[in-house]
Amino acid sequence: MSVIEKQKNISRPIKLDFKGIPELELIELQLIEVLSDSKGTVRDMCSHILSAGGKRIRPLLVMHIGMAFGENSDELINTAVAAELIHMASLVHDDIVDESGIRRNKQSINGKWGNNFAVLGGDYLFAKAFAIMSQNGLNNSMNFMVEAIQRMCYGEILQAEDRYNTECTTEKYYEKITCKTATLLEACCGAGAVVAGAREIEIKLASEYGLNLGLAFQITDDILDLTGIASVMGKPKCEDLKNGILTLPIIKLLENQDYHNWIENIIEDRQFNDEIIDMVGLALMQTGIINECYETIRFHIEKAKNCLDFLPDSMCKDFLLSLPEMVYKRIN
Amino acid sequence: MSVIEKQKNISRPIKLDFKGIPELELIELQLIEVLSDSKGTVRDMCSHILSAGGKRIRPLLVMHIGMAFGENSDELINTAVAAELIHMASLVHDDIVDESGIRRNKQSINGKWGNNFAVLGGDYLFAKAFAIMSQNGLNNSMNFMVEAIQRMCYGEILQAEDRYNTECTTEKYYEKITCKTATLLEACCGAGAVVAGAREIEIKLASEYGLNLGLAFQITDDILDLTGIASVMGKPKCEDLKNGILTLPIIKLLENQDYHNWIENIIEDRQFNDEIIDMVGLALMQTGIINECYETIRFHIEKAKNCLDFLPDSMCKDFLLSLPEMVYKRIN
Repeated sequence: MSVIEKQKNISRPIKLDFKGIPELELIELQLIEVLSDSKGTVRDMCSHILSAGGKRIRPLLVMHIGMAFGENSDELINTAVAAELIHMASLVHDDIVDESGIRRNKQSINGKWGNNFAVLGGDYLFAKAFAIMSQNGLNNSMNFMVEAIQRMCYGEILQAEDRYNTECTTEKYYEKITCKTATLLEACCGAGAVVAGAREIEIKLASEYGLNLGLAFQITDDILDLTGIASVMGKPKCEDLKNGILTLPIIKLLENQDYHNWIENIIEDRQFNDEIIDMVGLALMQTGIINECYETIRFHIEKAKNCLDFLPDSMCKDFLLSLPEMVYKRIN
Repeated sequence: MSVIEKQKNISRPIKLDFKGIPELELIELQLIEVLSDSKGTVRDMCSHILSAGGKRIRPLLVMHIGMAFGENSDELINTAVAAELIHMASLVHDDIVDESGIRRNKQSINGKWGNNFAVLGGDYLFAKAFAIMSQNGLNNSMNFMVEAIQRMCYGEILQAEDRYNTECTTEKYYEKITCKTATLLEACCGAGAVVAGAREIEIKLASEYGLNLGLAFQITDDILDLTGIASVMGKPKCEDLKNGILTLPIIKLLENQDYHNWIENIIEDRQFNDEIIDMVGLALMQTGIINECYETIRFHIEKAKNCLDFLPDSMCKDFLLSLPEMVYKRIN
């Protein structure tokens, strides 16, 4: 699909899907190659993860940021693949933490093989990511990735500590989503820029682009959890809320005097039947909260796009500019 | 404690404990330092792990192998600390896999904080280990460690696949313990030698020393699980057997025609009361299997020691030669 076609697509709600982008094929092939030397259950888990697909937004970011500064290179592809493996590993472990049985319309690794195999499968993917970076001497990429993983763990732990906490603030929410999601997208952009030989200020701006894209991405994710279409999302509706993960729309509802007691009782009593879930969705629209959240996303999207002003025009820049818009309009 | 005192100690069963060795203090301080920037539950988990102690055999190996070739250095200490963090991370995750509630006479991380925090706590420790190596440019150490972690995951998965499998062979057992235990000790010695600037053949011999020490270490562990003193071991007796992990003594008992049906029934019916456990212990002694296993350990210990023939005499060499003997005589 050409960039112009992509631009057309973002004038309506879209399914985020990068099929047809040549770099995606490179990444898929490389992922298959990297995981092909596994055996037994490890191999089965890797195949399951690969076939479940995924948007591959992180490796695409690494590559497009890198190619906006220079040529494609093995270093860039390897960094991209390592980033996706880290993301995969974190999803496998997150599903254990959240006790999620479904991921991308398929059984999750813990759902299919149990927690014990899922812990080890995730570790294996982390190790593979580091093996790629280490064996190819990608020190700069590694520095970005290790920092990101530490923050991702910290963000997930913050989230676990704060379950069902109806006193959670917007500030705390931002700290959590920055760590658990945005930080890896930030690292992908930073690493892509460094690998391509960008200057310090360019690396900083690329990273800030990734950070804001990541924040926008997570806030849409949190809206879609509450209002999205389960079959498109590939997981049950309102899973976060049912797990006590209070996201921006819910925090805003808790801050609304008229709704505070009602939603607090629902959360504290953990009454999450279908009727209640639908009522929460309506309340979020009636109060204008969904709209406010989309405005917040718009803010981060503009901020992300502005970070790219310094880049000369190119196909890669076009892709990087369209990505935040696609994130805004996405339904999955 | 001087090396001579250590040598004296190994003429009787000993509690493996390296207190008094100056390098140990360095390692402890560095571990505390490295984990001191954590916050909240992560910090609590790190403190819990640090205060539970441990033999620190892996960092001591890195340092003594390194110092047998050259001077102590920051590179060596950082590699040593990373090795211990990787070991700690793997223990945290293994306890989830094995559903162990107790480790070193304290609650395990999953026992105290639950699986969800334990998954993330382990990930954090892995990330810390890689951060240290990455930020200090320890590429060679990293190559050894990423290879080891992949094999450790593979070994743990092999073990999980093979639970309660009464057809497990000695060959398979070796594959498992090589991957899950010996490979990290091998990597510690290889990394220590590389960091100290050893030649290729020396690195190979140092690694082989670590591999054989690791095999000896794991086989004694497996004997102690069946015959050891629970309070000294810091975990319940026969935990492996109860979890369906069939170790060398049990595999040998299964291969014994007279005992085959009896032990197979016990395993298949999962009848593990105290009386049965004591009877299994007696059977292992009556058949001479415990003795055979100690002979196997002796074989690996001699092999390990022979690998060090090429080293010039030094305090470090003395320590490295005494270590296998201590492993043989250990009660913990």
